[in-house]
Amino acid sequence: MSAKPLIKACIFDVFGTLVDWRTSIAREAQAALAPLGVALDWSAFSDAWRDQYQPAMEDVRAGRLPFSKLDVLHRRNLDVVLAAYGLQQVDEATRSHLNLAWHRLDAWPDVAPGLLALRNKCLLAPCSNGNISLMVDLARRNGFAWDAVLGAEVARAYKPTPIVYTASAAALDVPPENTLMVAAHSDDLVAAAAAGLRTAFVARPDEFGAGQGEREPACAVDYCVSSILELADVL
Amino acid sequence: MSAKPLIKACIFDVFGTLVDWRTSIAREAQAALAPLGVALDWSAFSDAWRDQYQPAMEDVRAGRLPFSKLDVLHRRNLDVVLAAYGLQQVDEATRSHLNLAWHRLDAWPDVAPGLLALRNKCLLAPCSNGNISLMVDLARRNGFAWDAVLGAEVARAYKPTPIVYTASAAALDVPPENTLMVAAHSDDLVAAAAAGLRTAFVARPDEFGAGQGEREPACAVDYCVSSILELADVL
Repeated sequence: MSAKPLIKACIFDVFGTLVDWRTSIAREAQAALAPLGVALDWSAFSDAWRDQYQPAMEDVRAGRLPFSKLDVLHRRNLDVVLAAYGLQQVDEATRSHLNLAWHRLDAWPDVAPGLLALRNKCLLAPCSNGNISLMVDLARRNGFAWDAVLGAEVARAYKPTPIVYTASAAALDVPPENTLMVAAHSDDLVAAAAAGLRTAFVARPDEFGAGQGEREPACAVDYCVSSILELADVL
Repeated sequence: MSAKPLIKACIFDVFGTLVDWRTSIAREAQAALAPLGVALDWSAFSDAWRDQYQPAMEDVRAGRLPFSKLDVLHRRNLDVVLAAYGLQQVDEATRSHLNLAWHRLDAWPDVAPGLLALRNKCLLAPCSNGNISLMVDLARRNGFAWDAVLGAEVARAYKPTPIVYTASAAALDVPPENTLMVAAHSDDLVAAAAAGLRTAFVARPDEFGAGQGEREPACAVDYCVSSILELADVL
């Protein structure tokens, strides 16, 4: 058995890894749009909105857009998706409220108790592409006790740009090799490992619908678990 | 009686306002240096180290030094003070440990219960010149439950530069006029008010030794209290 690294800080991907964005966004979209007489497949709407996520961040990563908070990108994406659905009539107040649906996502059930257990072992912070206020609202809603809110807005760059991982470790004064990036997505972990961090894969097999998530990592990782509670056990 | 503003977030000065740096640094300096045979007035040593604080930050504010974490400035200042005391013989390991004394400061007794009570009313974050890891260690030591760690390192500037205040409010998505800057120092509150924030003065009459702190604000403020618990009462 190989020696396990000393982990002083865990930093977390959030969308998909800690919170079930797909179900929550479907619920919020229905709550906002059904009263306007809109009927559609709400999970498909959720997927369509999320499909705009990487292209919007790519505009920032490629330098075509200055760094903008994810709330701003989400709003641009929402307008694109509403137009694609032929819903141009949706008013500004509804759009504005619906855009903040990303602040009202529910955690997977293992996350709050898992973070509580992990808190006795190391420092904890999100390393998400979500902005600070979004992370703050998710933490309040779901009872996450972070030591600090790190990630894209602090680094002013979007994952998988290496500086987002290294700046998060540096803000905590923890060397990358003692910092564990926790995510349900192999591409996030490949980038974190390339930046010198340790990695933990958390399986979220239902992220994109029942059985439609990553079941196992497509890369070498330091830990592979099925929940944050299990991660607290093995660390 | 004038209408009180709606406060959605409280951001806090930390050194002096929430923690008793002078007593804590004196204790830490004695613990680190007395075993080496050093005998001196530990409170005076604490004051001497703190006296280097504003000049070091002024080098950053004036552009003579790129933005550097406060830990880095504290270390430069410590070397200056040790030299001034004729203590050039103090070894690197001792200097390094003593420099992190600022991560081991004790809170004034009203702060932890006061923040707990305030947490039910608004968002809470430090807006300190201390770096993120320093704030994280103080929070762990003293039981502060922050929503996020904001301030100098996130803004990459030192108070009283206006952006430190406005960037902290913006990170929380709270307008400056709904953000309350809480401090025991009038100059901090003057700068926050000029940046559009609301202000609360907390009296810390013993900050610089018995009876050697600001008893009342030297400027107009929205609130004037004698503890964080009292602030939670009046908000």
